[in-house]
Amino acid sequence: MTVTAAGEEAIIQGYLAPLAAGYPGAFGLKDDCAALTPTPGHDLVLKTDAIAEGVHYRATDPPADVGWKALAVNVSDLAAKAATPRIYLLSLAFPTFPDHAWLAGFAAGLAEAQAAFGITLAGGDTDRRPGPASITPFVIGEVASGGMVRRTTARPGDHILVSGTLGDGAAGLAVLSGEDAGLSAGEIAYLSRRYRRPEPRLALRKALAHASAAMDVSDGLVKDLGRMCRASGSLGARFEVARVPVSAACRAWTASSPDRAVLPLVGGDDYELLAAVPPERLDDFGRAATAAGVAVTEIGRFTASGGVDVVGADGRSLALTKSGYDHF
Amino acid sequence: MTVTAAGEEAIIQGYLAPLAAGYPGAFGLKDDCAALTPTPGHDLVLKTDAIAEGVHYRATDPPADVGWKALAVNVSDLAAKAATPRIYLLSLAFPTFPDHAWLAGFAAGLAEAQAAFGITLAGGDTDRRPGPASITPFVIGEVASGGMVRRTTARPGDHILVSGTLGDGAAGLAVLSGEDAGLSAGEIAYLSRRYRRPEPRLALRKALAHASAAMDVSDGLVKDLGRMCRASGSLGARFEVARVPVSAACRAWTASSPDRAVLPLVGGDDYELLAAVPPERLDDFGRAATAAGVAVTEIGRFTASGGVDVVGADGRSLALTKSGYDHF
Repeated sequence: MTVTAAGEEAIIQGYLAPLAAGYPGAFGLKDDCAALTPTPGHDLVLKTDAIAEGVHYRATDPPADVGWKALAVNVSDLAAKAATPRIYLLSLAFPTFPDHAWLAGFAAGLAEAQAAFGITLAGGDTDRRPGPASITPFVIGEVASGGMVRRTTARPGDHILVSGTLGDGAAGLAVLSGEDAGLSAGEIAYLSRRYRRPEPRLALRKALAHASAAMDVSDGLVKDLGRMCRASGSLGARFEVARVPVSAACRAWTASSPDRAVLPLVGGDDYELLAAVPPERLDDFGRAATAAGVAVTEIGRFTASGGVDVVGADGRSLALTKSGYDHF
Repeated sequence: MTVTAAGEEAIIQGYLAPLAAGYPGAFGLKDDCAALTPTPGHDLVLKTDAIAEGVHYRATDPPADVGWKALAVNVSDLAAKAATPRIYLLSLAFPTFPDHAWLAGFAAGLAEAQAAFGITLAGGDTDRRPGPASITPFVIGEVASGGMVRRTTARPGDHILVSGTLGDGAAGLAVLSGEDAGLSAGEIAYLSRRYRRPEPRLALRKALAHASAAMDVSDGLVKDLGRMCRASGSLGARFEVARVPVSAACRAWTASSPDRAVLPLVGGDDYELLAAVPPERLDDFGRAATAAGVAVTEIGRFTASGGVDVVGADGRSLALTKSGYDHF
């Protein structure tokens, strides 16, 4: 195939159709629409989150990482709802025809992510337009009827739990942007990978059966916790900075400058889960997480009102100067 | 609400949440994901098609028309599959915060389209990025299990049917771009509306039960018919130019210059349906279309091979110099 002479159908048949080969309802990407036969007794869980070059990923990122990340940030939301991924559509827009190496790498990253998350391409749309390359997946998962875990149902007294470690994604972006802060090669590689290859916490689906509410942390802990508080009827939340889980590599990075200490609280791109767990379910939640092999950490409690209260090492509330990333 | 100070959540809660008010699975657009409980015994039909300013619509188009068109071009694909629209997600990207008048008009157009098509907003994503404003709906419809009409299943000998009239969309775009060709005000208004307010042929769902295959005509009759031929296993198709249905207004426009005569064959943006109907089902198809109040016209037949053969008034095949619009 001559890429320079190829059009939309060449991208679809050359690079995308192989990703849909395992799914009959994709019709080889030769139809106008995809089909899905839902599993009886299940609800569908639906999500779309776009990523654009220069905004959500760097033009120099390996294309396989871009493909992985596009799917991962969406599947992360399914994971937070305790849903099992099924299929996705993919809307692509490019200002010029991407070269073969980029398309092949991008498709390879999608293929890796599909295998890791158990999801298959079913359809989509490819378009040329000015502006940055943009990648818009639309993912569909399933839960047993009524089983979707909500963001809006945290309750006062619930414990605040987070999975994994926070701050790695933002530290990874900083490191990739050239701020290496004297970190070791191993630390740089770890943080870079955390930024480029987020791993949706699908393993926590069983644990989430014990949660009142959950969401993923994509825009920073303080901002996303604030969203859960507002969505749950103007709750408050109080947590201790010292209990926020931070990796050794991220700790090395934050220790390199006083400005960076706040990163695990406000940095985006972690895609860890934030869950509200009632006191009587805390042990069950912890056991299920342990069985799944995912570290979870209790960092505080939801309160009846008052916004997000961040408690420092001295027991006093901190005033944050930056509360994460807003899209506008 | 002060629009200048508002962020993503202001767009969502101020303009989009009212569009989702009637749908419980949207959770007021306050959750990370939407939920859908499928109707038992049905398959879902899924489609995404993006529109971008300056590419698929004009910056000067009324925002209500942009909202309508974004949804209409996607629902048109559901109509071609004989699916009943249910819900959609909406991924929006703007280079700067749109002003209140634009957002309010856009939402009003979506509301009109929702009411006309029987579909409701369930979720989405709003983002700021460089480049043109872009609007990416993901629509979901339902068909009785196994009832999705395919693009890929036309057979040799099937009749070629089209709904409504062709060429209006492209003539409307030309007229709106200033090429009025001395048309009357009524003709200009008709063609402009056909471009800005395409109407998905949902009324033809029952008729499509008698079709072997169907798709919508969005990129021009010759190109889309060619796609159906290729998707159906390298079929051919032969149709007569004189039988292609053309509105009086479009005929006035094409008559104004020899260059324009080909427009009904290659012009895009019509969103009429193209169907392959076996001879023994032709009467049933026609009766169902009549009952639905939609004009359908038989223009030719599918053949075993040979590509798309366009037959002129003299009975000889025409060589087209332009076969519609390709995205790359």
